Amino acid sequence: MATFGLTEYADASAEVRAIYDDILATRKTDYLNNFWKALAAHPESLRRTWESIKQVMAPGALDPLTKELIYLAVSATNQCGYCLASHTASALAKGATKEMLSELLAVVGMANETNALAGGFQVEIDERFKTHA
Amino acid sequence: MATFGLTEYADASAEVRAIYDDILATRKTDYLNNFWKALAAHPESLRRTWESIKQVMAPGALDPLTKELIYLAVSATNQCGYCLASHTASALAKGATKEMLSELLAVVGMANETNALAGGFQVEIDERFKTHA
Amino acid sequence: MATFGLTEYADASAEVRAIYDDILATRKTDYLNNFWKALAAHPESLRRTWESIKQVMAPGALDPLTKELIYLAVSATNQCGYCLASHTASALAKGATKEMLSELLAVVGMANETNALAGGFQVEIDERFKTHA
Amino acid sequence: MATFGLTEYADASAEVRAIYDDILATRKTDYLNNFWKALAAHPESLRRTWESIKQVMAPGALDPLTKELIYLAVSATNQCGYCLASHTASALAKGATKEMLSELLAVVGMANETNALAGGFQVEIDERFKTHA
Amino acid sequence: MATFGLTEYADASAEVRAIYDDILATRKTDYLNNFWKALAAHPESLRRTWESIKQVMAPGALDPLTKELIYLAVSATNQCGYCLASHTASALAKGATKEMLSELLAVVGMANETNALAGGFQVEIDERFKTHA
Amino acid sequence: MATFGLTEYADASAEVRAIYDDILATRKTDYLNNFWKALAAHPESLRRTWESIKQVMAPGALDPLTKELIYLAVSATNQCGYCLASHTASALAKGATKEMLSELLAVVGMANETNALAGGFQVEIDERFKTHA
Repeated sequence: MATFGLTEYADASAEVRAIYDDILATRKTDYLNNFWKALAAHPESLRRTWESIKQVMAPGALDPLTKELIYLAVSATNQCGYCLASHTASALAKGATKEMLSELLAVVGMANETNALAGGFQVEIDERFKTHA
Repeated sequence: MATFGLTEYADASAEVRAIYDDILATRKTDYLNNFWKALAAHPESLRRTWESIKQVMAPGALDPLTKELIYLAVSATNQCGYCLASHTASALAKGATKEMLSELLAVVGMANETNALAGGFQVEIDERFKTHA
Repeated sequence: MATFGLTEYADASAEVRAIYDDILATRKTDYLNNFWKALAAHPESLRRTWESIKQVMAPGALDPLTKELIYLAVSATNQCGYCLASHTASALAKGATKEMLSELLAVVGMANETNALAGGFQVEIDERFKTHA
Repeated sequence: MATFGLTEYADASAEVRAIYDDILATRKTDYLNNFWKALAAHPESLRRTWESIKQVMAPGALDPLTKELIYLAVSATNQCGYCLASHTASALAKGATKEMLSELLAVVGMANETNALAGGFQVEIDERFKTHA
Repeated sequence: MATFGLTEYADASAEVRAIYDDILATRKTDYLNNFWKALAAHPESLRRTWESIKQVMAPGALDPLTKELIYLAVSATNQCGYCLASHTASALAKGATKEMLSELLAVVGMANETNALAGGFQVEIDERFKTHA
Repeated sequence: MATFGLTEYADASAEVRAIYDDILATRKTDYLNNFWKALAAHPESLRRTWESIKQVMAPGALDPLTKELIYLAVSATNQCGYCLASHTASALAKGATKEMLSELLAVVGMANETNALAGGFQVEIDERFKTHA
């Protein structure tokens, strides 16, 4: 279980409940996942993390689905089981297909392979890659 | 420098040169970067890695630019300096804007943060995330 | 389960039992956790690891609780589930409060985020940070 | 160099300059390090990251020096060269001694070792560590 | 469970079944493990990954058991639970003894420790290690 | 440079010099590499790390070259530049050939790829891999 248990909506303070409400409204869902209920043990962390996620994951130069895919790429690289389970669900909800997720993981696999090869062969950075401004 | 030095085109065997030619033709460029010149120390690895990259990075359910962004997400997470330098250049060549790369890194940063939080708080996977078939 | 099972106290050799006794006495507890019972499959590793841990975690310029927090910071970064569970328990036993652990995880989260940003933006080390002797 | 170069104070927009001013005032220094100058390529990321860092690193249940040590523990685990250089300087500025940093790294080293051992031996979490609420 | 479920032999397409047959024949076993059944959700990834593994793990300058040990070293470092479980079984099947696996993990532990120390102390590469061609 | 500089032999205390002598004698070399000179800033860490390395890397059920290869596998996975440079040199000194190191890196690359795939596809551990005692 989570380090300090999960704070259910019914047991939450007014401060935490307001953040929960914003999460549910922003995401257009009535399900609050365990990550937020765990973070609620420290309301300051809950607020800061949610405000940051809301800003970062909003549509911008990259669309929300692409951002979900990037999230999954990081989570697979870090072997974060919780993150993979929850963000796979998010990606599917945002329209990812099985084919897209499969290609995503193929790229993630190759990137992890070539990262290790570039490091292991101690490849020096090409002069032309040192300036890309 | 690379563990076994870099194999320049002029010094390459016919076998390696054929792979070099395919890399340059596929990528529509006349510049071969150090990663491939380093891998050429082991032609079997050069061939296998190139064939895999060519297959995985080709357009599919995900477009090539999205695939480059995913590559960068993994490379930033792994602190692979070479990979970040070369794939930032690739992403720019494929049309990534400064704004897109900045948003990418913002997502990568947040994902690394919440991965650590989900792990650190030992959050259990929600029942509903255990089945997404 | 552990690769080679767990060696219970009753089944341990005299050599292993002596190390178990030292662990229990040093930690002022009568509970031996699975990590040590797993390592006992290789008495040399059990002895070396315990002797190192005993030395490194002893009070010094840093107090034992600060050292536990550092342990947790590494374990959250590495997504080591066992280590997070056992060292969260240790930290609480050494006087960590829920507030302290929450702040710890907030710092760990931010550090993982900015590590990825510093890598991803390929930030060069400032001249003045290159000499701190 | 940084992906999009460094934004010097003299070249910064009013928005970025206001954040720079807050960083310098909060830290009671007249030196702005490269990390912030690199992030300034994306003012939204600069603002969000700085606001988060300011909140997380402020004195609380943990003192600022302990927080710096935790930052270093994560950065050493992630092999983030920039972060190690800049936060070692910060830790020294906040009163860390050579002895404290040495003990910190000793703990970080041991934690990385035992994380790998706990994972490698596939040690199961003890029942008593599963509940610490 | 796996993101897209597991494709059992009886439910597999002719294309996937042919790859399954090659895996079983090459490995001289009648048991197909979950990793391949999961990858079968994307036949292209199944084929490419299997062809690469078959090539890379075949006897060469390094014998198959040494290659399994290297696989385990990476998997322990990455905290990949599935990989540790399946490759520990493979190593035992290829003749690894309990003593060998214990020594392997001891080396993996020390390498993870000294990697963190070399990074944390920001040790510069010795001149003589920069050229080993 | 290293956090606290490098302690040269001529400037070392008798305690440190005795450890330096043991390193040089054990390794049958007259060259002391920067890692040890950096660790000497904290003699306790120097002694403990050296004693552990000496024990772990000694011939046993695994030969010294296999142990060096395992060290390299971990170092490539962790992107530890210093460790890759110094242990590549060590491996060559212990008889590794260019072909062996190339195959090593090919396995390391594949293991990092399949680790990410096993994590990303959230593959469950096969029942038969849960017991290997």
